[in-house]
Amino acid sequence: MRRPVIGVMGAGEAEPLTLEAARHLGRLVAEAGWALLTGGRPVGVMEAACAGAKSVPGSLTIGILPTGPDSPVSAHVDVAVFTGLGDARNAINILSSDVVVACGVEGPGTASEVALSLKAGRPTILLAPAPTAAAFFHTLAGGSAHELATPEAVIALIEQQLGIPRWRAV
Amino acid sequence: MRRPVIGVMGAGEAEPLTLEAARHLGRLVAEAGWALLTGGRPVGVMEAACAGAKSVPGSLTIGILPTGPDSPVSAHVDVAVFTGLGDARNAINILSSDVVVACGVEGPGTASEVALSLKAGRPTILLAPAPTAAAFFHTLAGGSAHELATPEAVIALIEQQLGIPRWRAV
Amino acid sequence: MRRPVIGVMGAGEAEPLTLEAARHLGRLVAEAGWALLTGGRPVGVMEAACAGAKSVPGSLTIGILPTGPDSPVSAHVDVAVFTGLGDARNAINILSSDVVVACGVEGPGTASEVALSLKAGRPTILLAPAPTAAAFFHTLAGGSAHELATPEAVIALIEQQLGIPRWRAV
Amino acid sequence: MRRPVIGVMGAGEAEPLTLEAARHLGRLVAEAGWALLTGGRPVGVMEAACAGAKSVPGSLTIGILPTGPDSPVSAHVDVAVFTGLGDARNAINILSSDVVVACGVEGPGTASEVALSLKAGRPTILLAPAPTAAAFFHTLAGGSAHELATPEAVIALIEQQLGIPRWRAV
Repeated sequence: MRRPVIGVMGAGEAEPLTLEAARHLGRLVAEAGWALLTGGRPVGVMEAACAGAKSVPGSLTIGILPTGPDSPVSAHVDVAVFTGLGDARNAINILSSDVVVACGVEGPGTASEVALSLKAGRPTILLAPAPTAAAFFHTLAGGSAHELATPEAVIALIEQQLGIPRWRAV
Repeated sequence: MRRPVIGVMGAGEAEPLTLEAARHLGRLVAEAGWALLTGGRPVGVMEAACAGAKSVPGSLTIGILPTGPDSPVSAHVDVAVFTGLGDARNAINILSSDVVVACGVEGPGTASEVALSLKAGRPTILLAPAPTAAAFFHTLAGGSAHELATPEAVIALIEQQLGIPRWRAV
Repeated sequence: MRRPVIGVMGAGEAEPLTLEAARHLGRLVAEAGWALLTGGRPVGVMEAACAGAKSVPGSLTIGILPTGPDSPVSAHVDVAVFTGLGDARNAINILSSDVVVACGVEGPGTASEVALSLKAGRPTILLAPAPTAAAFFHTLAGGSAHELATPEAVIALIEQQLGIPRWRAV
Repeated sequence: MRRPVIGVMGAGEAEPLTLEAARHLGRLVAEAGWALLTGGRPVGVMEAACAGAKSVPGSLTIGILPTGPDSPVSAHVDVAVFTGLGDARNAINILSSDVVVACGVEGPGTASEVALSLKAGRPTILLAPAPTAAAFFHTLAGGSAHELATPEAVIALIEQQLGIPRWRAV
């Protein structure tokens, strides 16, 4: 079985509470043995989630960059995929994640990823969304995102409701 | 000068009032001499806007398809670009439109395009958005979409406020 | 029926004889009423083919750019599609062309397009290829490119052997 | 330092000798501690190289798929990136590899990757190419691929001439 991949999406510029949640979520994802996928840039939610994951021995972090190989990458990314596609790469983030978690929906890039995730029918979780974001995504045709308040609740939902088992290297 | 390109985004399945607005908007775009760009599929807002435009002699319609060359295309598309990219092609719709108009925001594909348009800093217009959609996009960092109630108001804003001149073939 | 699209691929830096052939080929494509698709940049074979086409009244030229909307475009491109995908856009050139013509195979970008065209099973024509290029593409599994010496022969093959009719606006 | 990534490209249908070389090359890449990147499909050179790498404890294999998440993947791929881009994903293979090795150039997909690699200026190695392939890529403007006869020579060139150090997890 391939290691499950949890995608954590979020803004390059985010509020301190959002960054703290991202770091905590990244750590919990890694403790479950799952790979963490982010946009890979050395800023905001991407950086915080990857840093949290890499505080766990044996963790694996994947960054899907919008740019080419000479661009900055989070130092906490193990596997960097350089797409050179600009924001078209957001679709890859979604298709490559077994579960998509938006850690805040503070910027338009994250909003596009939540929308693409709903469109692709991926399991989609909004962690501590603003009320306007939650209200909007609930009204979208076909949309059905989970809303959760804490990183612990995200992990519980992935494991128990979505049935994705914790992973250990054989 | 290249012919200005107005992108009209909208759901493959849309309400009758939305489809009527799309058809009317497509006609007005064509009457201004502008090219109309849509997602090119033979359904929903894409089909309606293209049909409206092609009721005007000399109009030009461009469809950016998510699929390859054997896929269905609106009969009202003059230039079909087959990307084979799936939803990653949404980013191309945005970059290739001088102005992006969302005709309703009823589905997640359209939501992703509005978000990508705000991210790319393109002039972005929401035509008759649901209140939850308008509220959401106003709270997004860096977001600044125009909200308008009628196709006529969209054309007036493009011409007068955005300064895009009507176009005539030389 | 949509206007047939003939893609002409070639290097940004090309030999004078290649550029002359590109200009001539662009003109003949336009005289047949077909749309001309190129990479859209204001250099080399792309520029020459578009200029040739635009010397014909009623012609239509499509440019599929690797870059975003602030990048340089040939002044002879009517419809510019800004992909922002870098060289990944080469696949779009192929999928969007009913026939792919390589005007010389002098650079690696063109080589990638011929290869992608053979992979996608598109009708593929090499116009005046170097012997090493012709020999290589003949040995590729599944490859079957036509080799022709003149633009006139290209037009004749498209019309007679591939059965693509000349096009007139209704 | 991120783990260096060696991309091994090759046909989905390949000759037995090519498959044997791919398997051996994959194993040697893994023994050097480098990550192996392929197109990820469960066929041909991709499958053989990944299988070779996974015979080494601690190895890491990355597959960049042209398809979405429901498509077949080599069982020897640790990290699967689902692009949904079709052959446009070939550009990502190149940008994401520190060195690109073509294990045979038997099909058009591989040919496109070698061409894109030369265009992007990535270090490019042809392992046991057919004479027509070697001759062609040598004549391409800007092209400068290394030609080598054995997997051992590939590893030596990467380490000694390109200066990419063997990698050990800290």
